Amino acid sequence: MRLSQYFLPILKETPKEAEIVSHRLMLRAGMIRQQAAGSYTWLPLGKRVLDKVCRVIREEQDRAGAVEILMPTIQSADLWRESGRYDDYGKEMLRIEDRHGRDMLFGPTNEEMVTDIARSYIRSYKELPLNLYHIQWKFRDEVRPRFGVMRSREFLMKDAYSFDIDYESSKAAYDRMFVAYLRTFARLGLQAIPMRADTGPIGGKLSHEFIILASTGESEVFCHRDYLEMPVPGEGVDFKDAPALAQTVEQWTTPYAATEEMHDEAAWNALPETERLAARGIEVGHIFHFGTKYSEPMGATVAGPDGKETPLFMGSYGIGPSRLIAAIIEASHDENGIVWPMGVAPFDIGLVNMKPGDADCDAVCERLYGELQAAGHDVLYDDQDTRAGAKFATMDLIGLPVQLIVGPRGAKAGEAEIKLRASGERETVAIDKVLDRLKA
Amino acid sequence: MRLSQYFLPILKETPKEAEIVSHRLMLRAGMIRQQAAGSYTWLPLGKRVLDKVCRVIREEQDRAGAVEILMPTIQSADLWRESGRYDDYGKEMLRIEDRHGRDMLFGPTNEEMVTDIARSYIRSYKELPLNLYHIQWKFRDEVRPRFGVMRSREFLMKDAYSFDIDYESSKAAYDRMFVAYLRTFARLGLQAIPMRADTGPIGGKLSHEFIILASTGESEVFCHRDYLEMPVPGEGVDFKDAPALAQTVEQWTTPYAATEEMHDEAAWNALPETERLAARGIEVGHIFHFGTKYSEPMGATVAGPDGKETPLFMGSYGIGPSRLIAAIIEASHDENGIVWPMGVAPFDIGLVNMKPGDADCDAVCERLYGELQAAGHDVLYDDQDTRAGAKFATMDLIGLPVQLIVGPRGAKAGEAEIKLRASGERETVAIDKVLDRLKA
Repeated sequence: MRLSQYFLPILKETPKEAEIVSHRLMLRAGMIRQQAAGSYTWLPLGKRVLDKVCRVIREEQDRAGAVEILMPTIQSADLWRESGRYDDYGKEMLRIEDRHGRDMLFGPTNEEMVTDIARSYIRSYKELPLNLYHIQWKFRDEVRPRFGVMRSREFLMKDAYSFDIDYESSKAAYDRMFVAYLRTFARLGLQAIPMRADTGPIGGKLSHEFIILASTGESEVFCHRDYLEMPVPGEGVDFKDAPALAQTVEQWTTPYAATEEMHDEAAWNALPETERLAARGIEVGHIFHFGTKYSEPMGATVAGPDGKETPLFMGSYGIGPSRLIAAIIEASHDENGIVWPMGVAPFDIGLVNMKPGDADCDAVCERLYGELQAAGHDVLYDDQDTRAGAKFATMDLIGLPVQLIVGPRGAKAGEAEIKLRASGERETVAIDKVLDRLKA
Repeated sequence: MRLSQYFLPILKETPKEAEIVSHRLMLRAGMIRQQAAGSYTWLPLGKRVLDKVCRVIREEQDRAGAVEILMPTIQSADLWRESGRYDDYGKEMLRIEDRHGRDMLFGPTNEEMVTDIARSYIRSYKELPLNLYHIQWKFRDEVRPRFGVMRSREFLMKDAYSFDIDYESSKAAYDRMFVAYLRTFARLGLQAIPMRADTGPIGGKLSHEFIILASTGESEVFCHRDYLEMPVPGEGVDFKDAPALAQTVEQWTTPYAATEEMHDEAAWNALPETERLAARGIEVGHIFHFGTKYSEPMGATVAGPDGKETPLFMGSYGIGPSRLIAAIIEASHDENGIVWPMGVAPFDIGLVNMKPGDADCDAVCERLYGELQAAGHDVLYDDQDTRAGAKFATMDLIGLPVQLIVGPRGAKAGEAEIKLRASGERETVAIDKVLDRLKA
């Protein structure tokens, strides 16, 4: 993408309303724009990051055997009356009346709707296990939305729902999602720690929040230092091997880890002081096992091996991609701007033409731009006629992992400079060697 | 994807509520499920088609220089009061009050919001031209939603908005989108004819609807037969060559073409009878040039070359991917089911194992499934132990372009059968030659 043809509205001043660093940087880098309280437009740079985060989430959901669907945002209140949550949910639910006076709502979550889908199609235990997920906009009418997309009212959520014939197989479904979440966060460059959690309005007994440690986190968390070194299952993990997955989950849930709400002072104090890690954390995922909480009242039953109708055992599994992006920035930035981990960066490479109009600079940049794209790189090419200082400041602010800088002297000598955003390391490389160097 | 691990809820009976063939086939093929009046879940097969259609739309928008953003679904009523449309829009707009009593609405379109974005960032004509698009769910509270996703209340829309400094450049922007639309529909296997259109609540003077001809179309349309043979610009079209694009638009708008509303009996009767084509049509896209209709009341101005503030010249360009899928099916089906054009089919190939459990069949199918995927094909592998008749009926119903059938005798002899869905042509091919044959 050529910057001259892109829409990257960088803000020079730090917006006053932004209280936390991710909000400030997302506004300054032209990633988002507030449209109303807790409601944001994703500008082109932000949209690219959102797509990349969703792609990683999708790949790991698919790998774990979940199947993608897409449910509508607007739901009928009648479904929620069946589960009993319509009256329970409170003012966070955005209630709507349509032109015929029917009660509708903007879905804050989809347990009822997906249970309705399951009960209308699934007849037999032979069609299980099944896990259906979607990535769709949700609305929760928070009293005081703040922190940008970290706590907005309209937000994107990936929510998966598992259906099984009994507790044992639904625990295996829970384990699959647990491991998929470990992998997802690791691929996004985040160290996420699963912590036993309160189940709130979703319900059920077994639940984990995935928390990343960041000094700007919203709440205090307490965990064993061992988590910092615990290995995340690799790409080859076998999602059909239930015992191995259960063992991974066991390993990841045995050392002490708790949010403030679930904190147990006695257990905590029993740990040697050198093993205690008290920090601030941001919730980036939440998984629930709630058995038959929805299937029973809603009549979602299937025939078991004995022919008897049994209510489905269910779990639900949420990740908020929009919030996740803010969390990544909280965990990965410096005084100059964002430092994107590879894999979620909006572009891999920022190609900087220091002197557009200079024949050498233009020729070298055009050549590199073409070659890098042909090699599969996402390149943002700054072809604009602006000051060097502004160019560098923008590149640092938007945090692309690699900057490739072409100035008139270097271009004449057949050289470009590679700068790594994370380390600040710089290296001069012959034009012919740039592609090879970037591979390494 | 293995069918045993997929979620493909085929319906054996034709649902009574479905009045048109696309609605019937989408329900029967397990593509969609109705959740409320005019509101649908996209089941896995439908979601895949939706993604493929959106991908084609995106590629052509990007090629034409539009930049993707994502605006929220919920909008503030205040914005719509600025343009004067809040009161004008009528009961089709879903009006909402939030917990603080603020007036909101579920966006039926985004002219106001995108104008607000433009006025807050664009300062100078030097930042133009700009075209911002997004693909987002819209809601229009139709009195009587029907025909499945053809006329639903919650529907997906790609809407693009162009910003220019004067009429001439905004006409060039209109031409770019016009040509991008011709290409988009052609890639989706549709013959779309642009027709002068009424501008309705969007406003402006210049507008075209893109209509595809289908016997089940919602309205009568009238056009010159020449349209059936008119060449659509190829992949190499240069979107920077404004005069060439204007010429293409000229060519595509000169012969007679009109919807019922705009029909001119005198002009029609002046055509030789052999050149007249009266048919039924389905609207699949609609583009508008409305100049300063929104920028003036909303104060979206930029500095021109002379330093004077000028209101932005704008256009908007809509395609409904969800409705488009129904239109594709209306135009491409037979008595056995859907016939997907290549490029939007949910999977390219349906691999049918006629006798799962038979060692030869299983071995051949596993090998082909692996090889086809490695070669980049999307394959749905029917590995289920069901009757041959049911397998064939399902494959025909879901309309994958190629069926690859492996039975026990063929497997023993090292052969498989290729069946093309569209023509019904069958061919027996040696297992080793399957990949080469599919390339051709």
